[in-house]
Amino acid sequence: MALTVCQTNVVTVQDLLADIPERLPAELFQNLLVSSQLRVERIVSRGHQTPKGEWYDQDENEWVLVIQGQAELVFDDSQPPVRLKAGQSIFLPAHCRHRVSWTPEGEHTIWLAIFFPAENEV
Amino acid sequence: MALTVCQTNVVTVQDLLADIPERLPAELFQNLLVSSQLRVERIVSRGHQTPKGEWYDQDENEWVLVIQGQAELVFDDSQPPVRLKAGQSIFLPAHCRHRVSWTPEGEHTIWLAIFFPAENEV
Repeated sequence: MALTVCQTNVVTVQDLLADIPERLPAELFQNLLVSSQLRVERIVSRGHQTPKGEWYDQDENEWVLVIQGQAELVFDDSQPPVRLKAGQSIFLPAHCRHRVSWTPEGEHTIWLAIFFPAENEV
Repeated sequence: MALTVCQTNVVTVQDLLADIPERLPAELFQNLLVSSQLRVERIVSRGHQTPKGEWYDQDENEWVLVIQGQAELVFDDSQPPVRLKAGQSIFLPAHCRHRVSWTPEGEHTIWLAIFFPAENEV
């Protein structure tokens, strides 16, 4: 196979800790990488939580890592809440109903989320 | 579709900044997530670099993020070297020949790497 140009001049370095708007009236969702098999997002929260009574119920699997800050997730079954700090990740299978119940005010919580098809839906 | 159990008791929280051996004679590679479409790895370096003259020439695409520490990548074409610090990511297409030319001594550089098939090989 021919050498693929590395394209580092084209696909520049992304800085996940930078370019955060001064005001964040809502959580910020940004695609970092999109392919046919997966999507990688940066999510920035600042005191946000999922509206009470609303649940994420996703067709895709999600693997999520807190890069900076902290967060708490709760689940729509008998699972206990999970507190995540910077460097911690969790796997959320498709249709695992969950919500973000807390992110701290006064600091940015930066998430890296990887979404990919559930095996039984491929 | 029936509610999938969230399995947070089974798939526990992973801490990417913890559980690093005292001594690292070689770089540490650990799978964090494996599915049919992608593989997520933690890589821990401490002053390591790819042996001189050796190049990574991978069949898969790689998206890599420095979680902690710093690193320099060089490329086997006319691309300039790229310095990455914590929070910075880069996309390395399949067969983009590259090597790690530097990670600092005296601190752990922790990488998150996502490997997934090149579109033309799916």
